[in-house]
Amino acid sequence: MISIVIAGPRGNMGREAVKMVENEDQFALKAVVDHRYDGISMKEAEGMEPLDIPVYKEIEACFTEEQPDVLIDLTNPETGKVHLRKALEHGVRPVIGTTGFTDEDIKELSAEAEKKKLGAVIAPNFAIGAILLMKLSRMAARYMDDVEIIEQHHDRKLDAPSGTAMKTAQMISEVRKEKPQGHPDETEAWEHARGAEYEGMRVHSVRLPGRVAHQEVIFGGEGQTLTLRHDSLNRTSFMPGVRLAVEKVMETTGLVYGLDEFID
Amino acid sequence: MISIVIAGPRGNMGREAVKMVENEDQFALKAVVDHRYDGISMKEAEGMEPLDIPVYKEIEACFTEEQPDVLIDLTNPETGKVHLRKALEHGVRPVIGTTGFTDEDIKELSAEAEKKKLGAVIAPNFAIGAILLMKLSRMAARYMDDVEIIEQHHDRKLDAPSGTAMKTAQMISEVRKEKPQGHPDETEAWEHARGAEYEGMRVHSVRLPGRVAHQEVIFGGEGQTLTLRHDSLNRTSFMPGVRLAVEKVMETTGLVYGLDEFID
Amino acid sequence: MISIVIAGPRGNMGREAVKMVENEDQFALKAVVDHRYDGISMKEAEGMEPLDIPVYKEIEACFTEEQPDVLIDLTNPETGKVHLRKALEHGVRPVIGTTGFTDEDIKELSAEAEKKKLGAVIAPNFAIGAILLMKLSRMAARYMDDVEIIEQHHDRKLDAPSGTAMKTAQMISEVRKEKPQGHPDETEAWEHARGAEYEGMRVHSVRLPGRVAHQEVIFGGEGQTLTLRHDSLNRTSFMPGVRLAVEKVMETTGLVYGLDEFID
Amino acid sequence: MISIVIAGPRGNMGREAVKMVENEDQFALKAVVDHRYDGISMKEAEGMEPLDIPVYKEIEACFTEEQPDVLIDLTNPETGKVHLRKALEHGVRPVIGTTGFTDEDIKELSAEAEKKKLGAVIAPNFAIGAILLMKLSRMAARYMDDVEIIEQHHDRKLDAPSGTAMKTAQMISEVRKEKPQGHPDETEAWEHARGAEYEGMRVHSVRLPGRVAHQEVIFGGEGQTLTLRHDSLNRTSFMPGVRLAVEKVMETTGLVYGLDEFID
Repeated sequence: MISIVIAGPRGNMGREAVKMVENEDQFALKAVVDHRYDGISMKEAEGMEPLDIPVYKEIEACFTEEQPDVLIDLTNPETGKVHLRKALEHGVRPVIGTTGFTDEDIKELSAEAEKKKLGAVIAPNFAIGAILLMKLSRMAARYMDDVEIIEQHHDRKLDAPSGTAMKTAQMISEVRKEKPQGHPDETEAWEHARGAEYEGMRVHSVRLPGRVAHQEVIFGGEGQTLTLRHDSLNRTSFMPGVRLAVEKVMETTGLVYGLDEFID
Repeated sequence: MISIVIAGPRGNMGREAVKMVENEDQFALKAVVDHRYDGISMKEAEGMEPLDIPVYKEIEACFTEEQPDVLIDLTNPETGKVHLRKALEHGVRPVIGTTGFTDEDIKELSAEAEKKKLGAVIAPNFAIGAILLMKLSRMAARYMDDVEIIEQHHDRKLDAPSGTAMKTAQMISEVRKEKPQGHPDETEAWEHARGAEYEGMRVHSVRLPGRVAHQEVIFGGEGQTLTLRHDSLNRTSFMPGVRLAVEKVMETTGLVYGLDEFID
Repeated sequence: MISIVIAGPRGNMGREAVKMVENEDQFALKAVVDHRYDGISMKEAEGMEPLDIPVYKEIEACFTEEQPDVLIDLTNPETGKVHLRKALEHGVRPVIGTTGFTDEDIKELSAEAEKKKLGAVIAPNFAIGAILLMKLSRMAARYMDDVEIIEQHHDRKLDAPSGTAMKTAQMISEVRKEKPQGHPDETEAWEHARGAEYEGMRVHSVRLPGRVAHQEVIFGGEGQTLTLRHDSLNRTSFMPGVRLAVEKVMETTGLVYGLDEFID
Repeated sequence: MISIVIAGPRGNMGREAVKMVENEDQFALKAVVDHRYDGISMKEAEGMEPLDIPVYKEIEACFTEEQPDVLIDLTNPETGKVHLRKALEHGVRPVIGTTGFTDEDIKELSAEAEKKKLGAVIAPNFAIGAILLMKLSRMAARYMDDVEIIEQHHDRKLDAPSGTAMKTAQMISEVRKEKPQGHPDETEAWEHARGAEYEGMRVHSVRLPGRVAHQEVIFGGEGQTLTLRHDSLNRTSFMPGVRLAVEKVMETTGLVYGLDEFID
């Protein structure tokens, strides 16, 4: 049984994490940390699950009192950094789901975790399916090096291509030699039809109501294509990643950055 | 039983048409017309199916001798025009699979067909599946007006988007009011990721080895998407269209331009 | 402006309908009918949207007091039937989103609506995308008569195939002559691999977590396939159908069964 | 430069292999072996590519005369076995694309190859894309263990599911604990809709004109799905696999069974 404290229990991710920990037999939720409440039970706090579990304002008091095995932090970059340090100080293994760590930070925190002989995980992305898609794509690109990416999202998304699409193209480029694709003399009757270009690969962004978050990586070869596709419908899709991180942080010594380290 | 003459029996389309006519019980192949051979049988001519069917050089001699119901012409724009006229003169119903007719031509030939009380078909595209895709797309666009088109072709294709994709967008625009799609403030971190734009709709062209000719029209709505997709693998996919044109030309009086007239 | 009363405002569909009516400029929500509450405002009732709109227990009192143009009923088959009759009696045009009407019922209610010169709609399915899929499929089947259906749903679904898949196969069979598909001598090394069979067409049901409600109809022809696919993510996808039904019930006289009547 | 002899140059695979070897700069085609012809050049033999390359009837004479590095054998199981042995005897590295080897055969031939310090490859399947699909599927199944397979083939295929689909299910079962999928109480209104079952996974076989050879493996998880798909259009898709086998057989000592050994 792994005992767990969750920081940020009222956010979208936090609420899902509370439910997931409650549902897993091998996990026990000891307490939550929230900057707005102190000394009450979750069911008394607005916006939290109706559970009989204590809420702490101060994370150090929480650690001292509850002595959990693991902290799951789903707050924000600034708070996440502070919580990570305090967890290590108190002998708690941190799983931090925020971004914003510099290389400097990671180097220093890594040394700290090693010194304390504790596992620690920073996961900017808990979507195991998306991480799998990226890793499998990099693998496939070693054998089929004509690649196009089509990502589809809802039409409220501001940026194109998606971060995952750009990261996928970059991961593929680690094993694929840069080369142009398509016919050398191709022309566009309607300009930009061939999409964005990254080292010769093409990337296309679709934005439509009714879509959520989807990505397709298509590998073309003589007489055949291989297509890898990930469809993500909502935040529950992040929970298997959180679960994996908790399990792995218990077995690890030192800091791991990114869940892809655990997927092979 | 419909008796048929085929002009252009050695081309890719012509060879497939010969096979199709031979295989259909309700069709009888009477002769073929080829500018290179005369007075021999198909099986004696290089590049033709090994059939015991006469080959004519002069189409008028062929019409006089064989008195077919229908001419299927799969030659080239120039020859196709001449053959169409001669067919009408000899009381033969023409199915012409070439392009290059001006509006003037069509008007004049239309009057000619009416006068002779004969059916005639000019079909710049025999791909029934593609025509269906376009017609169904126009229908769907009346109920769901956020639309993106993704077309995929082999990487030897020179032009983007494909002619079918452009025609599809144009047919949809007949029933869809022009409007921008996506978020009004969207930006492209990698430029052109959002593809080509036509009246607010987006069109994306994928070029990969292993693809042949594919098109997907995606309609987005609240909580749902409708996707229509056509995959074409080779020229045999044109034969149902040729067959339909032959059947319809027997029932029609006057000139019909485009197979879409027959699909409702 | 169309004035509307909604019965069943606490159910999944009812809640979405309340939000939709509130958001549409041409609609005005006058009241809701709920068997549990009476004489209060929606915002005082548990499980309702926080609106300042009256709640009635008795539908007849509601009709007399509010005199709405349209009733949207999203209750249950038994209550729906009663509400439909009472609406017609009070000169209110009913849009009924429940099932369970017999042919007898429909005949009688149809006569009643005619007599009162009122429009009435019974819609067992409000998913316009699914209805479009069915209608387009029936159209395509006239030109390509080899058909397989793959439907995919979440793994909590009890029945297979889905009702939509069965109805799609039945609609296609209206225009497709029954015929066997696949090779006449095909065998199954793992039994049932070829799925269910309906007049020669094959139907396959996939059940997986991460899926919601999806259906694909694939038409095969020589060298080509045409695929029509509908993906539905949540109940908001039903709202365009409810909106269409309200608009059409105002223009119609007599009873219309099924939204497909309005889609052509 | 790797010098090569091809046995079975008139078959579908053999013809493609001849073209591939001719097109690769690092390969040189020295001769072909065909039971029907002897002592002539390929261009004189019916059904062969018009090349100025000698044809041998006896494989031993061919080996003695030409001293090739590699034999590519695309004949039949019986002949393939004989050719493999003779190749090893003459110091030629065999790439055998036939099936029908028993475990006994493989053990014995393996010992023989080791003794001769020669590489040898037996590849029952040269489709790298399909092999990749299987390997990536086995990898993904470690993280997402709800799996369904949909394979689609032309309607002249006799057996269902396809051999690749069955092998994929078996490879996934190496890492997936057997468990039932779908709802425990699910029922089939049209029987067999849920397809074939293998250790709880479901397998569906679609047979339609216009399809060639396609396979989709769908992994379902909370709020997400991962789909891996392979589309194979023709035999040219096997050539990258033949090329890889030739390259690898030069670097290997001992017998390798199956190309998946080379893909990691």
